[in-house]
Amino acid sequence: MTDLAQRVAEAADLVTVALDELLPRADGPESRLTEAMRYAALGPGKRLRPFFALETGRMFDLDDRPVLRAACALECVHAYSLVHDDLPAMDDDDTRRGRPTVHKAYDEATAILAGDALQTAAFEILAHPDTHKDAHVRSDMVLKLAQASGARGMCGGQMIDLLGVRDDLGAVARMQRLKTGALIACAFELPLIMAHAVEAERHALMAFAQDLGLAYQIVDDLLDVEGDPTVLGKKAGKDAAKGKANYVTLLGAGGARERLNLLIEQTKAHLDAFGPRAEILRSSVDFVLDRRS
Amino acid sequence: MTDLAQRVAEAADLVTVALDELLPRADGPESRLTEAMRYAALGPGKRLRPFFALETGRMFDLDDRPVLRAACALECVHAYSLVHDDLPAMDDDDTRRGRPTVHKAYDEATAILAGDALQTAAFEILAHPDTHKDAHVRSDMVLKLAQASGARGMCGGQMIDLLGVRDDLGAVARMQRLKTGALIACAFELPLIMAHAVEAERHALMAFAQDLGLAYQIVDDLLDVEGDPTVLGKKAGKDAAKGKANYVTLLGAGGARERLNLLIEQTKAHLDAFGPRAEILRSSVDFVLDRRS
Repeated sequence: MTDLAQRVAEAADLVTVALDELLPRADGPESRLTEAMRYAALGPGKRLRPFFALETGRMFDLDDRPVLRAACALECVHAYSLVHDDLPAMDDDDTRRGRPTVHKAYDEATAILAGDALQTAAFEILAHPDTHKDAHVRSDMVLKLAQASGARGMCGGQMIDLLGVRDDLGAVARMQRLKTGALIACAFELPLIMAHAVEAERHALMAFAQDLGLAYQIVDDLLDVEGDPTVLGKKAGKDAAKGKANYVTLLGAGGARERLNLLIEQTKAHLDAFGPRAEILRSSVDFVLDRRS
Repeated sequence: MTDLAQRVAEAADLVTVALDELLPRADGPESRLTEAMRYAALGPGKRLRPFFALETGRMFDLDDRPVLRAACALECVHAYSLVHDDLPAMDDDDTRRGRPTVHKAYDEATAILAGDALQTAAFEILAHPDTHKDAHVRSDMVLKLAQASGARGMCGGQMIDLLGVRDDLGAVARMQRLKTGALIACAFELPLIMAHAVEAERHALMAFAQDLGLAYQIVDDLLDVEGDPTVLGKKAGKDAAKGKANYVTLLGAGGARERLNLLIEQTKAHLDAFGPRAEILRSSVDFVLDRRS
């Protein structure tokens, strides 16, 4: 395992342990709900948002502890969105990462509630005094996470995706920016708030996050046509089968790969202003994009 | 119309106008989502939580403006819970207050997303600097609303309700306390936070809120057997038909009514400590409980 792979794995472990402590325990007559929340949030996952949050915090010499709690909040929102997106009325997926989705392991009603309560847990974690001693920081983080995940962010993006985007690169880009880009950017933004980063730093890192999110989506679209279903843990070619446009259906695999390569250089260039202290984030670009699932 | 009925109606109007301003407008390709959110939150409703919040604020001489924003957040959470509870996988209701439920007026996927984004909107509103100048107050309100509405509050109560409670008054009481009691109590708690109320005031008003919430539930259970479906805007006798226990199935209509009458006096007594400034809240008890839907 490379040093970076080790670092990503360690971040994933840190956040899983922290989430296990933060999420409500299964007791009382409502324990089916807390079990389903834990099934959704503590199961296998890349924990990329937590990794980005932790490394951004380290770049600004922040303590890991407050950043880790913010990372848990991000992961709760990410987990809730997957639970709801998998529902029969939405993308109707039976498996995720090789395990039954929450509505298959439990039932639809429990999955809806578990998603709801995971979203609530995210804001409860951020607003808790244990997360940060400065209430301005806590309140600002709540605001940013809400903006990234609501109607003008993740939920809006999922709506566009459900309605279906056809033959329009601008619309595909907007959908990606809202559906996944906003929450990825938030993984960088929450530590920036804690670090009281100056505007130039914030600007550079937000540009980095947006390009990285877009690159990640293009890789996702490439995997959707070229990926191995047994490694993906889900069916491949789903977008094309549903007649949905994405970067590969619009640009072709070759065109998408070409755009990806340009984008990777552009993404890294945003970090130049930070010099050597951005080394981990810089090398994470290739690592994160070189994936099979 | 009595003075109090007038006051309740004015509070409802205030919060509807404020929500109309606060909720995202329908534009962009995701406008189906923002339309559904508005359909759910701006439709007819008693707006009781906003009324309680406003009157509590006035009792402490707070400006209406910040309390009104907190009231909107409460109403967003209430509205989201109704949208999700009505879904086919949950209570499967086609109508609410005489209108098609959100998944009937739109579709299930849109209803799930609209509920999700309404929850997010609640926290976005509370955390916004326009709600209160003191970040401690904002952050504390976010925390309290999250605690009231998550796995240890409203969502947990809905889980218990879905699993079904049978032949046990303690379980019925716990279900009510979590499912509806916690959010009603929050309507009093958010203004208490803004007012920096002392512990004794907080304690008395929380006891008032808990008893009022319980009384409201008993009336609800009485309406479920005795109510007029055309006035209720939904079917009557639903709990009994589903074999669910509630105060009326366990105590009988007479026993439930007897308990209610005792509870009403107990509820009002919690306000004695506040003297004449609690007059509106005191008289609202009878008003709120004398209902047909």
